[in-house]
Amino acid sequence: MKIRVIIPNSSEPFRAGQEEDRKKAASAGVEVEVVCLQEGPESIESALDEALAGPHIIGEVVRAAQEGCDAVSLDCAMDTVVRAAREAVDIPVVSAGEASHLLALGLARRFSIVTVMDSTAEAIRENLAKTGLDRRAASVRAAHVPVLELADQERAFTAILAQARLALEEDGAQAIVLGCTGMSQVAARLQKELGVPVIDPAEASIQLAEVYVRMGLSGSRAAYGPGSGADGNRPSGGH
Amino acid sequence: MKIRVIIPNSSEPFRAGQEEDRKKAASAGVEVEVVCLQEGPESIESALDEALAGPHIIGEVVRAAQEGCDAVSLDCAMDTVVRAAREAVDIPVVSAGEASHLLALGLARRFSIVTVMDSTAEAIRENLAKTGLDRRAASVRAAHVPVLELADQERAFTAILAQARLALEEDGAQAIVLGCTGMSQVAARLQKELGVPVIDPAEASIQLAEVYVRMGLSGSRAAYGPGSGADGNRPSGGH
Amino acid sequence: MKIRVIIPNSSEPFRAGQEEDRKKAASAGVEVEVVCLQEGPESIESALDEALAGPHIIGEVVRAAQEGCDAVSLDCAMDTVVRAAREAVDIPVVSAGEASHLLALGLARRFSIVTVMDSTAEAIRENLAKTGLDRRAASVRAAHVPVLELADQERAFTAILAQARLALEEDGAQAIVLGCTGMSQVAARLQKELGVPVIDPAEASIQLAEVYVRMGLSGSRAAYGPGSGADGNRPSGGH
Amino acid sequence: MKIRVIIPNSSEPFRAGQEEDRKKAASAGVEVEVVCLQEGPESIESALDEALAGPHIIGEVVRAAQEGCDAVSLDCAMDTVVRAAREAVDIPVVSAGEASHLLALGLARRFSIVTVMDSTAEAIRENLAKTGLDRRAASVRAAHVPVLELADQERAFTAILAQARLALEEDGAQAIVLGCTGMSQVAARLQKELGVPVIDPAEASIQLAEVYVRMGLSGSRAAYGPGSGADGNRPSGGH
Amino acid sequence: MKIRVIIPNSSEPFRAGQEEDRKKAASAGVEVEVVCLQEGPESIESALDEALAGPHIIGEVVRAAQEGCDAVSLDCAMDTVVRAAREAVDIPVVSAGEASHLLALGLARRFSIVTVMDSTAEAIRENLAKTGLDRRAASVRAAHVPVLELADQERAFTAILAQARLALEEDGAQAIVLGCTGMSQVAARLQKELGVPVIDPAEASIQLAEVYVRMGLSGSRAAYGPGSGADGNRPSGGH
Amino acid sequence: MKIRVIIPNSSEPFRAGQEEDRKKAASAGVEVEVVCLQEGPESIESALDEALAGPHIIGEVVRAAQEGCDAVSLDCAMDTVVRAAREAVDIPVVSAGEASHLLALGLARRFSIVTVMDSTAEAIRENLAKTGLDRRAASVRAAHVPVLELADQERAFTAILAQARLALEEDGAQAIVLGCTGMSQVAARLQKELGVPVIDPAEASIQLAEVYVRMGLSGSRAAYGPGSGADGNRPSGGH
Repeated sequence: MKIRVIIPNSSEPFRAGQEEDRKKAASAGVEVEVVCLQEGPESIESALDEALAGPHIIGEVVRAAQEGCDAVSLDCAMDTVVRAAREAVDIPVVSAGEASHLLALGLARRFSIVTVMDSTAEAIRENLAKTGLDRRAASVRAAHVPVLELADQERAFTAILAQARLALEEDGAQAIVLGCTGMSQVAARLQKELGVPVIDPAEASIQLAEVYVRMGLSGSRAAYGPGSGADGNRPSGGH
Repeated sequence: MKIRVIIPNSSEPFRAGQEEDRKKAASAGVEVEVVCLQEGPESIESALDEALAGPHIIGEVVRAAQEGCDAVSLDCAMDTVVRAAREAVDIPVVSAGEASHLLALGLARRFSIVTVMDSTAEAIRENLAKTGLDRRAASVRAAHVPVLELADQERAFTAILAQARLALEEDGAQAIVLGCTGMSQVAARLQKELGVPVIDPAEASIQLAEVYVRMGLSGSRAAYGPGSGADGNRPSGGH
Repeated sequence: MKIRVIIPNSSEPFRAGQEEDRKKAASAGVEVEVVCLQEGPESIESALDEALAGPHIIGEVVRAAQEGCDAVSLDCAMDTVVRAAREAVDIPVVSAGEASHLLALGLARRFSIVTVMDSTAEAIRENLAKTGLDRRAASVRAAHVPVLELADQERAFTAILAQARLALEEDGAQAIVLGCTGMSQVAARLQKELGVPVIDPAEASIQLAEVYVRMGLSGSRAAYGPGSGADGNRPSGGH
Repeated sequence: MKIRVIIPNSSEPFRAGQEEDRKKAASAGVEVEVVCLQEGPESIESALDEALAGPHIIGEVVRAAQEGCDAVSLDCAMDTVVRAAREAVDIPVVSAGEASHLLALGLARRFSIVTVMDSTAEAIRENLAKTGLDRRAASVRAAHVPVLELADQERAFTAILAQARLALEEDGAQAIVLGCTGMSQVAARLQKELGVPVIDPAEASIQLAEVYVRMGLSGSRAAYGPGSGADGNRPSGGH
Repeated sequence: MKIRVIIPNSSEPFRAGQEEDRKKAASAGVEVEVVCLQEGPESIESALDEALAGPHIIGEVVRAAQEGCDAVSLDCAMDTVVRAAREAVDIPVVSAGEASHLLALGLARRFSIVTVMDSTAEAIRENLAKTGLDRRAASVRAAHVPVLELADQERAFTAILAQARLALEEDGAQAIVLGCTGMSQVAARLQKELGVPVIDPAEASIQLAEVYVRMGLSGSRAAYGPGSGADGNRPSGGH
Repeated sequence: MKIRVIIPNSSEPFRAGQEEDRKKAASAGVEVEVVCLQEGPESIESALDEALAGPHIIGEVVRAAQEGCDAVSLDCAMDTVVRAAREAVDIPVVSAGEASHLLALGLARRFSIVTVMDSTAEAIRENLAKTGLDRRAASVRAAHVPVLELADQERAFTAILAQARLALEEDGAQAIVLGCTGMSQVAARLQKELGVPVIDPAEASIQLAEVYVRMGLSGSRAAYGPGSGADGNRPSGGH
């Protein structure tokens, strides 16, 4: 099984810093390739970033399918252009934000998301309304650390921990979902510190992609567009 | 007052066919300019189309603000990249789908939307969940006429009328919202035939844009991004 | 176009104090008449006030239609007897509370309402549940200034500002809707101070009434009663 | 214990026709008085009727409290002015529609309401949204028999039975709530015929009023107005 | 009329301590029998307790029906196995938690529940989601007094009062529902102290059971199982 | 990794018939043991069955943890006593119904469940309300084939197919979730026939259990009881 992880920004250093973790996130025997965009924003921290990155993401999704990948993991907790990506290809497209929310549902009644910025928090709130999972979310909080500064893991850990504690103590959360795939490295340490489940969206997304591939499941054509991936009218993305 | 209507596709014939109607949709003394995209999909009928059109739309929105327009009307019932557009500029950004839903709320308890295709219907259903207005929507139905074939007004009228009747008789709708700005020309005739309010999203959007300009209101920065339009870091769109 | 603004209380001094603002709230060329009730409560601050004012309001609404007005603006943020008023006449009936909520939906994801008293706050909460817009409301707060004391604009401004700040900082609001039409005079100043959209319900109601008249739209008979305004069985109100 | 049943219309023949049933609906030892309005609409079949009847209903509610009744049953499935009535007096005010919905919640997961007219159905739908009980309602259906023609019990029975069957077979209802207090006489027969619980709102309201009196419970002042019934500013109703 | 109150734990001292209160909770002429379980947990404070008590509760419910009781009151605010109990017998099965919530709906717009432990609070939250009444619940709070220590009434009163005040002042509650039937003895005193309705679930359950018996209503077979109580396949409970 | 699949009925032939499929449902290298109950109902088709099976299920869950299993899969689409099971042990407890719903969320906007009987359909509807996922469920339909007759695969296939088609064509479903773990054998064939994703709950549950084990995640103690599995007060189940 081969899974293509698509990081929807154009920061090669960010990609390089995540690659090892993504490979470790997969089960034994699963091949993971980690790519980022050739063009587009350096990080996805607003709806504007999402809009500008859109065609480039679609281009990578289509390329992954053409190159024989079994599934795509969109490596972004904001679930950027996930509907469009599912329309574009026949292989399963899993998105890190959504995947982490789904896993949280089986671990607690109410979860909170700790993300990077107010703008991503707001976009995630809107996503939760869209998927109807807002009923199970206690809060979405921002650690106020930009994506590309998460590399400073101590700072990231401290800032996320503070918001996670507030989520547990004041908002009624019972589990924490990390709201940025750049937070993967601190997930285990946070779980140990907090004593409740802490879900890494990047890992959740790869694991869920594996499940769909093993079970022979992919996005419903009745939900995601009337055409099929074999259709000659499919665009080839943002090129 | 000057309002820039941005048709988010690259079909100049479609734009030309709508221009007169858009100008008539505005109040006396309001200047309306109707543009479409230089590049991008020829029509917006899926999330994929939306993703590919995104940067081009943002580019036009930014240009409108730079050229001194008082408001932008995104002329699409699918409300494509409306969050991103509001992040990008300080002037009011009104979107045809959302505007038509808001007006419907003041006319009936339950409204139905009749749109062009199953794929647009599905995207509109997701938008209604996102905005929380699904509680007031009786149904979203597709007339199965592609955007660029709406120019055949008799065919369009007949197909929309049939779905609108089903919405009223079977789904409990009390008002009809047209789910494509290309349907403007048949709105009045449909209202006469059906005996319930029929809302043209293109007209709704221009009228609501005027209201926001007159009242000195624009998208909240607390909702749409922490930065401001004067911020030098704002991207100039997809160019 | 002629719009009749009906202030649903019997306080002539209150009416006189609002008249100029209402006329300024309309677009150029729109004639605005501002009336209040001949009988009934001196202010509307509870459901009890609403029940007692009901027939007198209906009487004025019917009179407006009979005297050739193009639309009615019910000038009360509690949306008193709005369903009944729409049943009573064929012209558009816009209500200040509802109108301000609709406009807020296009400006922010979550808005808060700052009203006069706990009793009006509670009635507005019930209205939001009824219209399904509670999903978008962050809170409803009371400034604890009775309607007829809003004339002391400094006191009103200070009290409303304090509650609006709490709404923004603690409740997650991104825009403020004023919860009493007697608060019109402080709206612009509040918006300047707070840096988020502040919506005056009286102005919103007149502007929305204009929109419906221009678009040829009025309350759906399928939603508001089976009869029509021309029906001889229509009551003539509370006289 | 003395309960005043207030029929919110001015039809003395209707009142007389219901009186015996109301007295039988109460438990042994409970005194029931059945009054109707001196003035106002002959039946309550629309929001307009409700608005016009409002002050007269409040007048009767206040009189009941002044004359030492232990509770009031508002004998109308449309729950007319129930908030105002609770603000007006300190004794429990139970309303037939709401009471019947509450009892249904303990008997089935989904109930349907069969009422008289489309206009009452629509008002009841709005009430269910307001109380949040729409999640448990399968449908609201109209038998298309006006209130004052329910006296023809055979016609009423046949029409209600037909709609109740549709509710059970097509809408997923598991219990039937009658949507007009004038339907009391056919409730038992319908239950026998349908094999599911059928709830008479008039009886439900009296029974629930008894419960509140026995338990020493009445409407919360925190919910229904800041003042108290002893307050000299309380209006004496519509006189 | 004979009502069997089933306390779903195996603590005879607890049962004995409640018996008198339950008999007083019924109307004149209603016979009340109070039983507890022969086996099973000593108190119900978690879902685990509920699962272990389940068959024993069902056994008692079936025995009550066989011995000619007119109704059963499940004396637990956690509404343990209420669906199963309704499937098992034809007589009305009322459950204390649900009954208290239903009565609260008629007294206030928002109620809070003060229960014994965090684990019962969490189970009650889940029940409110299940019944859809969470829209009307302001909060569920735990007094942190185990069921069997409620016998220390001063301690119980003080702890419950503190949480109830927080519910009223911080959560927006307008009425208090006690979240354990072992709290019956402090209900009246709390209501006097707090000035808002305080509902004793044990009393609510008996009173509601009486109502259903008087009205000839019982759980819908369409909602609670396809079989009937006369069906030979009905299990005889946990024996 | 060792996963214990607990079939919550006492039918050894049913268990034997499923064992092979469950082992095949796991990933390479994962050990799967399939047990059923020693005592209790022969199948779980009602809430009554669930209540009676409860203590026996808990007993098996506790035994699995004691015997060193890494996770438990509760092999029932009705999600019987899942909260209690999570309270009882520290290892992940995955339940087949919930697991299948979570996977469906990532494949389609609206899914329908096709289960065995009306009584299981009703219990599943209640579960969906409890988890808040009813917003994403198009319908729950019964194939009217009892659990133990599913062994007749042709009959099962035909009956399920018919209901699935109705779900897709009339209810708006875009994916099908099988509502009984005894339906595993027909899942693949149904998916081929229907052209939309068909989810086998038994497989979904095992796959999700693997994910949680690999990710080091288990039920939150903040959600599922204050105690821990090491706590001496933990019951040893129904023995």
